Amino acid sequence: MDALNKLSASEAAARIAAGKLKSEALVAACLERIGQREKDVQAWAFIDSERALAQARARDREPRRTRLHGIPVGGKDVLDTADLPTEYGSPIYLGNRPSCDAACVAQVRELGGVILGKTVTTEFATRHPNKTRNPRNLKHTPGGSSQGSAAAVADWMVPLAFGTQTTSSIIRPAAYCGVVGYKPSFGLVNRAGVKALSDSLDTVGTLTRTVPDAALLVEELSGAPVTSFDAVPRMKPRIGFCRTPYWRGADRPTQEALEQSVPRLERAGGKVAEVDLDGEFARLVEVQVTISTYEMFRALAYERTRFPDLISGHLMDRLLGGGLVTRAEYEEAQAVAQRCRARLDDVFREYDALLAPSAPGEAPEGLASTGDPVFGSSWTVLHGPAVTVPAFQGPRGLPLGAQIIGPLGKDGPTLLCAEWVHRALCS
Amino acid sequence: MDALNKLSASEAAARIAAGKLKSEALVAACLERIGQREKDVQAWAFIDSERALAQARARDREPRRTRLHGIPVGGKDVLDTADLPTEYGSPIYLGNRPSCDAACVAQVRELGGVILGKTVTTEFATRHPNKTRNPRNLKHTPGGSSQGSAAAVADWMVPLAFGTQTTSSIIRPAAYCGVVGYKPSFGLVNRAGVKALSDSLDTVGTLTRTVPDAALLVEELSGAPVTSFDAVPRMKPRIGFCRTPYWRGADRPTQEALEQSVPRLERAGGKVAEVDLDGEFARLVEVQVTISTYEMFRALAYERTRFPDLISGHLMDRLLGGGLVTRAEYEEAQAVAQRCRARLDDVFREYDALLAPSAPGEAPEGLASTGDPVFGSSWTVLHGPAVTVPAFQGPRGLPLGAQIIGPLGKDGPTLLCAEWVHRALCS
Repeated sequence: MDALNKLSASEAAARIAAGKLKSEALVAACLERIGQREKDVQAWAFIDSERALAQARARDREPRRTRLHGIPVGGKDVLDTADLPTEYGSPIYLGNRPSCDAACVAQVRELGGVILGKTVTTEFATRHPNKTRNPRNLKHTPGGSSQGSAAAVADWMVPLAFGTQTTSSIIRPAAYCGVVGYKPSFGLVNRAGVKALSDSLDTVGTLTRTVPDAALLVEELSGAPVTSFDAVPRMKPRIGFCRTPYWRGADRPTQEALEQSVPRLERAGGKVAEVDLDGEFARLVEVQVTISTYEMFRALAYERTRFPDLISGHLMDRLLGGGLVTRAEYEEAQAVAQRCRARLDDVFREYDALLAPSAPGEAPEGLASTGDPVFGSSWTVLHGPAVTVPAFQGPRGLPLGAQIIGPLGKDGPTLLCAEWVHRALCS
Repeated sequence: MDALNKLSASEAAARIAAGKLKSEALVAACLERIGQREKDVQAWAFIDSERALAQARARDREPRRTRLHGIPVGGKDVLDTADLPTEYGSPIYLGNRPSCDAACVAQVRELGGVILGKTVTTEFATRHPNKTRNPRNLKHTPGGSSQGSAAAVADWMVPLAFGTQTTSSIIRPAAYCGVVGYKPSFGLVNRAGVKALSDSLDTVGTLTRTVPDAALLVEELSGAPVTSFDAVPRMKPRIGFCRTPYWRGADRPTQEALEQSVPRLERAGGKVAEVDLDGEFARLVEVQVTISTYEMFRALAYERTRFPDLISGHLMDRLLGGGLVTRAEYEEAQAVAQRCRARLDDVFREYDALLAPSAPGEAPEGLASTGDPVFGSSWTVLHGPAVTVPAFQGPRGLPLGAQIIGPLGKDGPTLLCAEWVHRALCS
């Protein structure tokens, strides 16, 4: 029998429902794993073990509320928590204690889940790295910005963790650490109490080890219908293989892994065809920079004006760049995004999902960079659901992801396609 | 010569630019007016006079930064401020001191403005009233939720104040107090650090005594081009008179005032025709309730679960109603909103702006209700700019507003139309 910390949330929920597992034992197993590994991985900004265990015991004394009942969840440290510090990965907020919980944190608690602690974020969920290491190889970055959540889930410290994505901050670290990253449709998970970067792009999502676990957390929060994965073996999805306009930014092993997956998906029953997204789609990385920096210049106005010396050089450069974006340039970028969303709607009349790279390659060595977000930013701008599943291995033995992108608002069907692809490529 | 507290922001800015006015004198005049009247009007949640005067003196020692330099601004108490308490109109947050300023507050300070204090809000910017009275008649409500901002501006306490609108929280109090209320296009003013209610609807806007002052504040924050009002006398706008599907909810004096304004606008050179928004437009008030309560149930999850006894019965009923909205109902409501936005785009091919009621009538007597928001909520859902100007007087001698609604993203032209209507009806 697996150690309890290795259970998926769905399996743990089933055992809790059957009276075969106590939340306290599950939480204790996760805490034990953290105790063993945290010195190396450094995935957590704050843990209050006693508080987490007390919550678990309280849940064990109650009737089960939802599928989240008794399940430990990691909260990225850009989510406000009233009972744990919230530092946003910035020295400006050392010891900061918000006056309330973020909506998604309060909802997890209401639904019976146990907030295990706060996972490490890069500076304000941007690119300046923090301390977390890749549990697959400690010399490599786990990616960012949701680096603590990706590493903690990959290293069996917690089955579910929140991430946030404005560029590629869920997809990239999930791919680098070899877990499932799910950026839901824009707005599906409530953002109240999440430190704001870019109002038009910021999206709360999940890091998990399985696709059904990703569905579980987001469905419980949003009230979306429960997705049944029973039909996955009989699915014959229509998949558009999309190299994207940034294909040359992917390394050769990544390109080959994706190209070689096409016949395997066809053998598994999928209908795969190539989809070229050209024209204005090639502008989406630039569009994402224009939109996000214009908005970040304003969203971080307090920090930028009061504590410029406590902001990293990299972030300050981006903020000041955002200050130079004119309103007309910003509106033009939003117009391009809107046109590309409409064109993508047409693409999804022919395909159930698109398949694309999750990152340019394996996690880079060193902790000075969190890697290149180029394969996330377009899909973030387009607002639809995106899921990365660990599907391949690179030449250095580190994981590579396959990214599945679906139509805006069709998160359930997209998660089903992602699970289908995951099984087709990993069985 | 007028007292300094009666200057518009635009006039004060011109005098400051010309070296003829000191910010300290302007701020002192506002504080003096507040000292005289606050006992009756109760527009302010927090004022720190010494801090405001110190900021003004600091600005007076510096070169002028922008048009906002040295201008006092009121911040609604749902905007976080690090140096003043922020209570969101709720006993849950008595004495709450956030760790940073809201983006719009930090921007005002960066641009040289002086945050005079925090104006009173209803409970979390919803309908449960707070203490402010209507300065036109203290026995009447000032409306809500931006009640302190509307009353303070109407009573010559400050020339500019922030409001927020999720239903009709700028338009209604502005109309009731006889000032200009401007709800910009969705997203034009950054929302970071504003207590969230409804992510799809919450909009930061302004309460002012003149339309150019509304333009001034929002243009400086957003970087939108400066609107010149010089051409207003020569404008011949095409105006759609829109009774809206809720016309029967307006009282007879309001209906007559609007109907009788049509020939006056035509005499002033406008082309006015009736526009019927029927079909799905009639569902928008219900759509606004569905969207906002689904989102509020989540956004206020912490307060709802931890402090249910400190939430008003009215708000708790709305929150619990939101908990019953299914995801499918929410998505259907968003789809109706989207279809109506597309249909409105067609309407605006023929009209520069629509003219509609701002509220059902004069401000109701008593402080137990903030009045009916029915004439605001549709336009909030539709996301375009809306401006109310004080245009008429009701039978009890209280002001009635005329609401001008423009195409999404066309805030400058809409403000010009609003100014044209204001002059046509008030000259």
